Amino acid sequence: MYDLAIIGGGPAGLTAGLYGARANLKTIVIEKGLHGGQMQNTLEIENYPGFEKVTGPELSDHMYKQVLALGLDWKLGEVNKADLAGQPKTIEVGGEEIQAGAVILATGGQPRYLGVPGEKELAGRGVSYCATCDGAFFRHQDVLVVGGGDSAVEEGLFLTRYASSVTIIHRRDELRALPVFQERAFANPKMKFVWDTVVEKIEGDGRVSGVLARNVKDGSTRVIPGTGVFIYIGFIPNTGFLKGMPFLNEEGYIITGQNMATSIPGVFAAGDVRDTPLRQIVSAAGDGGIAAMEAYQYLENLEA
Amino acid sequence: MYDLAIIGGGPAGLTAGLYGARANLKTIVIEKGLHGGQMQNTLEIENYPGFEKVTGPELSDHMYKQVLALGLDWKLGEVNKADLAGQPKTIEVGGEEIQAGAVILATGGQPRYLGVPGEKELAGRGVSYCATCDGAFFRHQDVLVVGGGDSAVEEGLFLTRYASSVTIIHRRDELRALPVFQERAFANPKMKFVWDTVVEKIEGDGRVSGVLARNVKDGSTRVIPGTGVFIYIGFIPNTGFLKGMPFLNEEGYIITGQNMATSIPGVFAAGDVRDTPLRQIVSAAGDGGIAAMEAYQYLENLEA
Repeated sequence: MYDLAIIGGGPAGLTAGLYGARANLKTIVIEKGLHGGQMQNTLEIENYPGFEKVTGPELSDHMYKQVLALGLDWKLGEVNKADLAGQPKTIEVGGEEIQAGAVILATGGQPRYLGVPGEKELAGRGVSYCATCDGAFFRHQDVLVVGGGDSAVEEGLFLTRYASSVTIIHRRDELRALPVFQERAFANPKMKFVWDTVVEKIEGDGRVSGVLARNVKDGSTRVIPGTGVFIYIGFIPNTGFLKGMPFLNEEGYIITGQNMATSIPGVFAAGDVRDTPLRQIVSAAGDGGIAAMEAYQYLENLEA
Repeated sequence: MYDLAIIGGGPAGLTAGLYGARANLKTIVIEKGLHGGQMQNTLEIENYPGFEKVTGPELSDHMYKQVLALGLDWKLGEVNKADLAGQPKTIEVGGEEIQAGAVILATGGQPRYLGVPGEKELAGRGVSYCATCDGAFFRHQDVLVVGGGDSAVEEGLFLTRYASSVTIIHRRDELRALPVFQERAFANPKMKFVWDTVVEKIEGDGRVSGVLARNVKDGSTRVIPGTGVFIYIGFIPNTGFLKGMPFLNEEGYIITGQNMATSIPGVFAAGDVRDTPLRQIVSAAGDGGIAAMEAYQYLENLEA
């Protein structure tokens, strides 16, 4: 029996663990993959205060070591089911049941897929959702990026470190990314832009060779050649195991107040999985700290 | 004319500056003291994610250098007046007027004073609000701490590094501090506790020699000797220059939504000055990131 179970080991879950353990709560963090979550997929982080330049894996390691040193439990596994209404709360990880007085949902999210022919078949064979993980495989090659937001442009810029050219394929006629990213992208001689265009198929025989693209204005199609396709078209919160819960909004994000409390007593949320105005490491971390201290208060009141 | 003026250069203001500058906003930070704000008064920080152990001045420097490298303006000065209702907003610093499209209030707060005879007279002569700043002056001496919350106990523990003994004087019969702090305090042989007791006067002729203390249960008074008195009894938000603003609550904290927006369009708040559930570096930083990106959105909409 734990005081606090934290589902997810990204910056929100790690910070919740830090504050939970420092508040002397018997704490467990359950993470299905690597500590650090999405940070692991980011090579250079320049916008986490205190680190002028740090890699995602480095920052993940810093936070992970700091938290483990406090003596909490870390469990590798995916949560299949959670019974959160009663007291204690029960979480099913694999076949095992974990009980805790309070739960923090810090499960983050995952990339949105294009859903076109060739995408699944060629995943890991040229189709990627993580330039940081896979960029180095595309040295001196021509790669394509699908999307027009911050991630698409940031990661596209990152890919220019390796690739000969990076072509951003966007369904609209302008980028949604921050001006600072746009300026850098337009100023980078390796970056090219294909506007008003959607990808209908990813082509290739065993390896990506290009995409079948359709211009949404005139309906014309053509093949744009490239040996890599990086897809950055959005993000889905990891709340599948919470289906039907009263605190989910229409897009599946968790609704909380400023104190990170959901509508179920003793259940809190933090980070990207939350219906939050910003999805950044620093805001996720801030959420995690608040959620843990609010969970601590909830548990104190429970005992009293 | 700036896009964004940030008042306060602690973790909230620094992070707002980081995100503001990265969003290509012409940004100024106005700070009346040292960069880092209250962090400067903290020797060891162990609960900012990513740094297992860092001093407050070090973390302040890290954040400051990171932000300055982005090319924003940093102004040393105290804001006397702010006209925030219109567009642009006008801020008076010393005799100078600064104009900006959006303003982030990240002014933090300052310690609450005891308000007893001897406190002002002996400030800097044994009376202190900052163990980190002044602790080293009390090597091998007996010091007193007034208060029973996290700060009182944390700073009391810190003082044991220098002092022969640290006596916590608290008006109640138990501490309010986190259990982890309490355990450490009770386990520390240099720590002593005087319960149910208030300080009525700080005694000393040119230098602190002790306090006149009154037991609130039996009304008895006695002098508790000590050469230092560290006062940790609360915190006052720095919102004096905002008197009468519609977004202040009864205690003077700034009310915002989750997006850090106040009730005045284009005016945001972040960090300790906010009516927030947690006053920590990481939560202040998270606030700052959100406030800057919301200010960016506000400015984008203003131009459109």
